[in-house]
Amino acid sequence: MLARSLIERKRDRLRISPDEWRALARAYSADEVPDYQMAALLMAIFCRGLDRDETRALTDAMLNSGARLSLEHLGVGRVDKHSTGGVGDKVSLVLAPLVASLGVAVPMISGRGLGHTGGTLDKLDSIPGFRSDLSLEQATRQLETLRCVLMGQTAEIAPMDRKLYALRDATATVESIPLIAASIMSKKLAEGLTGLVLDVKVGSGAFLPEVERGLDLARTMIRLGADHGCPVVALLTAMDRPLGRACGNAIEVEEAVLALRGEGPPDLMRVTYALGAEMLVLGGAFPTTDAARRAMEGAISSGAAARRFQEVIEAQGGNPGIVDDPAALPQAARCELYHAPRRGFVAQVEPREIGRGIAALGGGREKIADRVDPTVGFVITARPGDWVEEGEPLASILARDGQGVDSGRATLARAIRIADEAEPPLPLISHRVTGSGVELLGDR
Amino acid sequence: MLARSLIERKRDRLRISPDEWRALARAYSADEVPDYQMAALLMAIFCRGLDRDETRALTDAMLNSGARLSLEHLGVGRVDKHSTGGVGDKVSLVLAPLVASLGVAVPMISGRGLGHTGGTLDKLDSIPGFRSDLSLEQATRQLETLRCVLMGQTAEIAPMDRKLYALRDATATVESIPLIAASIMSKKLAEGLTGLVLDVKVGSGAFLPEVERGLDLARTMIRLGADHGCPVVALLTAMDRPLGRACGNAIEVEEAVLALRGEGPPDLMRVTYALGAEMLVLGGAFPTTDAARRAMEGAISSGAAARRFQEVIEAQGGNPGIVDDPAALPQAARCELYHAPRRGFVAQVEPREIGRGIAALGGGREKIADRVDPTVGFVITARPGDWVEEGEPLASILARDGQGVDSGRATLARAIRIADEAEPPLPLISHRVTGSGVELLGDR
Repeated sequence: MLARSLIERKRDRLRISPDEWRALARAYSADEVPDYQMAALLMAIFCRGLDRDETRALTDAMLNSGARLSLEHLGVGRVDKHSTGGVGDKVSLVLAPLVASLGVAVPMISGRGLGHTGGTLDKLDSIPGFRSDLSLEQATRQLETLRCVLMGQTAEIAPMDRKLYALRDATATVESIPLIAASIMSKKLAEGLTGLVLDVKVGSGAFLPEVERGLDLARTMIRLGADHGCPVVALLTAMDRPLGRACGNAIEVEEAVLALRGEGPPDLMRVTYALGAEMLVLGGAFPTTDAARRAMEGAISSGAAARRFQEVIEAQGGNPGIVDDPAALPQAARCELYHAPRRGFVAQVEPREIGRGIAALGGGREKIADRVDPTVGFVITARPGDWVEEGEPLASILARDGQGVDSGRATLARAIRIADEAEPPLPLISHRVTGSGVELLGDR
Repeated sequence: MLARSLIERKRDRLRISPDEWRALARAYSADEVPDYQMAALLMAIFCRGLDRDETRALTDAMLNSGARLSLEHLGVGRVDKHSTGGVGDKVSLVLAPLVASLGVAVPMISGRGLGHTGGTLDKLDSIPGFRSDLSLEQATRQLETLRCVLMGQTAEIAPMDRKLYALRDATATVESIPLIAASIMSKKLAEGLTGLVLDVKVGSGAFLPEVERGLDLARTMIRLGADHGCPVVALLTAMDRPLGRACGNAIEVEEAVLALRGEGPPDLMRVTYALGAEMLVLGGAFPTTDAARRAMEGAISSGAAARRFQEVIEAQGGNPGIVDDPAALPQAARCELYHAPRRGFVAQVEPREIGRGIAALGGGREKIADRVDPTVGFVITARPGDWVEEGEPLASILARDGQGVDSGRATLARAIRIADEAEPPLPLISHRVTGSGVELLGDR
């Protein structure tokens, strides 16, 4: 009876009160509300929206459905970064040890890839022996020593969100800004953060391609953070092409290691520094983003950041040797070059095609239960705007066999468009959003 | 995968093709689409609507999920009447035998009451011995001899609609015009009709109170009928007060018997004649509604209509003696008068309050499985616009016990509003809608 009347209310564009959200969450968690009623409510929310108070109440209900990390005793700022997901986005792997090495704790809880986007947990899984299934207690202990943990969502954190997320996926109600925001924030707030940095991807390969929707999501999450005493800063970054060169799992870990050694591709470094500077300032370690950026450059050139990554890998059971020698990562059976079929400008490198192509090679998943081959993927050296001659190498294909190589070629032929004229890509870091408003950066 | 993509499509205001509706209906009937996906689709339909082709395709899919009556061999027109539901609406009980006695077959499949509205099947159940659970074969045989059957929806007819209706009820997706229209028409078209007359109730006690929504529903059903070669005529009638005087189950059968004998209250007779005239013209028995009306008056004064009701009751196992002596119907243990608490005009007799009050007395249901007491209810003699003196009797309360009488008094005190000035009630029959358009009748 309760659920039915709440569905009716939302359907009729009326509000649901915080008490009602709490009661609903309790009943749903106790399996007293059937999935078909929750599905109807999710679609009503998708179509009619939630206002600020409702989004907050739903977030609270999901947050309070599980346990939280209690990290006040660390005595330092605790800041995480969340990305809305993309292709080639290995920023977390660089950022977490880098920021932790500068004294801000990073309790990073990541997800698996789904659809065309990759997931940090899948990337970490390619490190031999690495375990991401830590308990909250293990995570707390590791944060006390290393200030950094790279783990998956445990059954203890926001169990209602896990249940709801599976239902949203099956009922086409994922792309709703209040539902996305409540889902992310319920998990992030469970990390006991003092600040959160959001990387909101925009462009054809992003979950929400339009800048306006990305800004909406950023504003919603910033308000949710403010309501919970957790300041949030969001950067809108480009996902109209992959980030960096490597797109896969093991090869992205390798690129992250290179980045920690100061040898990362420029776009990856710029996004990493921009997000890292926000984290370090939010965490109270540096007064300005400029100071934070200089410190990060120092931590990379001194080897401190790479060392911290090594320590985290070792603490979580992985082979720390991959930082000194990335060849210790699993290697693809076949590696073939892909050449430009004609001369011209690289007009586009379409991330969705690349993401789907990785899945076709066996390196992604359609369903959450699919197994992932860590070795396969693409290393794409061609960047939008480059002039290329016919036959010039644009990318490498890493595959299990000849069939994979053929599939990879077909993917790249679709994804990399060469034209007579260059097309301007999106600015790499286009907007900075805080509680005070939106700053247009337009940083290509 | 199919269901998910159709939900996404509807959510994004895109069309679903007839082939897709068919495939969805097949999968849902085979339990291959879980209720939670169907619930999300229902809510997306509620919020985004369906166009004419989609409504038709959904109707066809539901219609074809079950069996149909095949009645061509009767050699006469087959016309049914459907009401969107109200309080005191016993028109079907009068109309079916009346129209059948004039040579048009009436294969009337009715429902049970739910919420504040009554249901023809519940009323029929108060006739001792009466069985409404006929098979399609039994119904066909009875139509061959009596031209009339009064029965419930069998498991053979539109099983997908039964499954969907229960889901709509639980997910607050009932009040959607395309879903209502598809649900009604899939069942009515299964009756093998040559015409259908709709009684669309408007006013505070109606399912869709607003005239505009009533007209929308009428137009949608008229189009669906036209698409299936079944002409539909709709009358919009008032449900801002109960129809007739009796509101309950056995007492409504009694009032219907009185009406068949020519002693019915004027508003009931006017609605019955108006709907019956449309049925007889659609059924090809009379060239004009005036001729049909004169014939109906004749069938009532000659006793032919009452006799036909008697024959139908007998054929379906009921006690035909209730037509000669309505006292053979089950009688309430207590009958008490309700008096005007003050002098003034009867400003309102609120049907929803009356309907809920009947349920409170034990004569209605909140859930489809609830048992109904046939004896209880109200006989309301006061009409909106009447001048009444303090202490004048306005209604009788029929109850099981003193507690029921008290509850009935409280109901009537809420439902019957007496004021210093009369408030104009809605016209009894306000609009006539056909394929050619809307005629404003304004018939008080």
